Amino acid sequence: MGKTAFFCAGLLAAGSAFAAVKPETAIHYRQSVYHVILWNLAPLSEMYKGKLPFDAKEAELRAARVAEASEQLLEGFTPGSDKGAETEAKAEIWQNFDDFQAKMHDFTAQSKALLAVVKTGDEAKFKAQFDNMKGTCKACHEKYRSE
Amino acid sequence: MGKTAFFCAGLLAAGSAFAAVKPETAIHYRQSVYHVILWNLAPLSEMYKGKLPFDAKEAELRAARVAEASEQLLEGFTPGSDKGAETEAKAEIWQNFDDFQAKMHDFTAQSKALLAVVKTGDEAKFKAQFDNMKGTCKACHEKYRSE
Repeated sequence: MGKTAFFCAGLLAAGSAFAAVKPETAIHYRQSVYHVILWNLAPLSEMYKGKLPFDAKEAELRAARVAEASEQLLEGFTPGSDKGAETEAKAEIWQNFDDFQAKMHDFTAQSKALLAVVKTGDEAKFKAQFDNMKGTCKACHEKYRSE
Repeated sequence: MGKTAFFCAGLLAAGSAFAAVKPETAIHYRQSVYHVILWNLAPLSEMYKGKLPFDAKEAELRAARVAEASEQLLEGFTPGSDKGAETEAKAEIWQNFDDFQAKMHDFTAQSKALLAVVKTGDEAKFKAQFDNMKGTCKACHEKYRSE
């Protein structure tokens, strides 16, 4: 990533729409979205485990960002981007794209449900819904992520 | 990024809030946010240059994502994260953090202005505002990014 990622003009000069995007660009993009998701999941996870006190306002901010980012993952799985840079995405993704897409939509739906729950300020419900959301991560990783 | 970025449980298990986050984690996080910004700027740039027809709906989606992501950059510039992984962020950022922060806020303000403009569907105003936004990228990169 390095050189290009920090500079607006890099991709601005590239002159290609997503249809023509290089596999490695798509791979780096989706890995970036996952990284943003992980960053925002971290404080939620701490609250879920009781290592940080439940803070409804902070949880709302983080859940909103996870939900938004979850909707930005799919476009990074462009046709042919099972190769092109180091990736843990299995070729099965493109062989079962409808199922993969459904699993992504599950993640978004459960993230949005988490956002709705933290807005109520109910810690127990937050923990239960965090579990539901984690289940959608796991379901997709087990089937479509190589370790 | 690779191994951890694709798997929720990676950071979930890390057990640290942002205050205690490792410099390399913060660096990878902020580079990821920049990458997400670049991805979403690309179609806007194509429209700006006339290489893609102006599509107000698509521009609105992309401008919204750029504006949201712009607000997620600052927390990646944690104290001490001028080192720890390959980064183009200059040490001057932390020596002039108020100014750096002000420049980040300019970027967010101009991204939000871009979002407001594309909602009107006026292509000429979109291009003028895209120029304004680019100016905020440049202002920050010239001072705080090493090439």
